Amino acid sequence: MTDQTTPRLSEDDLIARYFRPLATDPGAFRLGDDCAVLTPPAGEELVLKTDAVAAGVHFFAEDPWDLVAKKALRVNLSDLAAKGARPLGYLLALGLPADWTEPQLAAFAAGLKADQGAYGLSLLGGDTIRSPDGLIVTITVLGATPVGRMVRRGGARPGDLIYVSGTIGDAALGLKLRLDPGLKIRLGLGDREAAYLLDRYLLPRPRLALAPVLLAHANGAMDISDGLMLDVSRMARISAVDAEFDVAKVPLSKAAHAALQADPTLVETVLTGGDDYELLLTLSPEVAEAFERAAFATGLTVTQVGRISEGSGKVHARLTGGRDVAFTNAGFSHF
Amino acid sequence: MTDQTTPRLSEDDLIARYFRPLATDPGAFRLGDDCAVLTPPAGEELVLKTDAVAAGVHFFAEDPWDLVAKKALRVNLSDLAAKGARPLGYLLALGLPADWTEPQLAAFAAGLKADQGAYGLSLLGGDTIRSPDGLIVTITVLGATPVGRMVRRGGARPGDLIYVSGTIGDAALGLKLRLDPGLKIRLGLGDREAAYLLDRYLLPRPRLALAPVLLAHANGAMDISDGLMLDVSRMARISAVDAEFDVAKVPLSKAAHAALQADPTLVETVLTGGDDYELLLTLSPEVAEAFERAAFATGLTVTQVGRISEGSGKVHARLTGGRDVAFTNAGFSHF
Repeated sequence: MTDQTTPRLSEDDLIARYFRPLATDPGAFRLGDDCAVLTPPAGEELVLKTDAVAAGVHFFAEDPWDLVAKKALRVNLSDLAAKGARPLGYLLALGLPADWTEPQLAAFAAGLKADQGAYGLSLLGGDTIRSPDGLIVTITVLGATPVGRMVRRGGARPGDLIYVSGTIGDAALGLKLRLDPGLKIRLGLGDREAAYLLDRYLLPRPRLALAPVLLAHANGAMDISDGLMLDVSRMARISAVDAEFDVAKVPLSKAAHAALQADPTLVETVLTGGDDYELLLTLSPEVAEAFERAAFATGLTVTQVGRISEGSGKVHARLTGGRDVAFTNAGFSHF
Repeated sequence: MTDQTTPRLSEDDLIARYFRPLATDPGAFRLGDDCAVLTPPAGEELVLKTDAVAAGVHFFAEDPWDLVAKKALRVNLSDLAAKGARPLGYLLALGLPADWTEPQLAAFAAGLKADQGAYGLSLLGGDTIRSPDGLIVTITVLGATPVGRMVRRGGARPGDLIYVSGTIGDAALGLKLRLDPGLKIRLGLGDREAAYLLDRYLLPRPRLALAPVLLAHANGAMDISDGLMLDVSRMARISAVDAEFDVAKVPLSKAAHAALQADPTLVETVLTGGDDYELLLTLSPEVAEAFERAAFATGLTVTQVGRISEGSGKVHARLTGGRDVAFTNAGFSHF
């Protein structure tokens, strides 16, 4: 463990130098106590989520640490967005590999700082340990919604319209390009298209601007992290309804569209790949117009892709001709 | 990653079978949603802590998984105890090694279940990932104290008496015995003494019964996890006071006493070793009698070991003769 060439900071000094500046909430006590305190604002309750990302599993060991930090925070923020919640703060458990360097740690803290500013939250506390292998980052995020108002995954009702935010499949295609550098040429993708897809894998965009819109209009919602098909099926099962969606309506980026034109079998990657971090939601047709107007005002796109019907958790993905699509892989498991 | 001989549970099935039964709080939504909700009881605020333990760093890869689960939860509960807080719930991020087995996972869940019952809290949510290497467990615990009443690490005042709970150094001696099986013989320890010390390393005892007593009487408190010397010094520094303590007063178990008699140089292990998970606290002499009476009623022992004086963060550890002790190692860093 000792390294004769690079003098290492003690854990206390490391925290003081890189993490204390991130602990802006008074309840974090400048990371100078064993615990933090937090009170939800009056009339609100806390919404909690913990998610871990590990080198070689959720990101590549060579990814820059500022982007790893942002990804670790954003996969958690994406869940808050889907629940209609506003972020308040987070706790960080950081497992550092034996060969960490100070520039890497400085980049990690800078990534967190930028996202704290962008999404409006504070570091509340943390723990730094030596990881037995690569970098591993566990973040627990705390948000707030009015009491009893968190948008539930199990709230979809028969007759509801199904919407998704943004575009689907970009991150899964980006991962494919990352793993197979020859694929870009074979699909005839331009540099900008390939870069777009690669970036979508590297850096989720939690749709927090839509959180208040979901809170106002959605019956059920979750974030899409393990593939649209699997996540729709989870929502249908827990809501005790069926879901029908029209594959032709699933929104695609220009780059994903180009990839699918070159190889139509990639539709499976698009619909079952992971890491979209877009929102999946259902709402009553009566509020659809108001929802679309409010969503439009955020600058983010939402697309109606299907409808909820009575049932018992089945998902029907229809091609334009009316035929059901079958997939060999129901979704991506991070596990 | 695929294993042809052992059929593996899917992540969803694993959660349903082993973790759903632990999610007894209604705000956990039976782990069927992206997030959990939590409202602190009226007049209380939340006290938050995250702590991670990893195989090969905080426990041995061959340790039984029920004990690893308990250790992971208890190191967090120990912090709540030091803050005068009552546990409410926790989130679990579980990094499983590639070769996990279902009996291991069943033991892990059983360990958590037993401790949830013993300490009165519920699993609120979690994430299961594949660990790049060994088992790694990150727990974020949530407790409650009356608003503004959390006992702070920085609350020690000149004139305060310093107390510790339980006995000091047992876990550090247990770790030494674990790493050096011949040591037991060389120290002339009996089987029961050695077993006692080994157990104290394996399984912390968070002193939650003392939490309300601290809340009522303590000016400053923290848990002792990185060695008494280092933790006293952290408390003195952040409280901007000096701490004087009498080495002869530091409470020892019979087993630790026997070890020290055989090898007096082990006093350094006792005072600077980690993993005590006892409480360090200071209080005004005027409340000492009431504190001792209330502590006695819990069945846990507390011992006065020193006194806080005006100063700037220095620690004086006095031998009976009045001489200061110097140590080569200021404390154990888990990092």
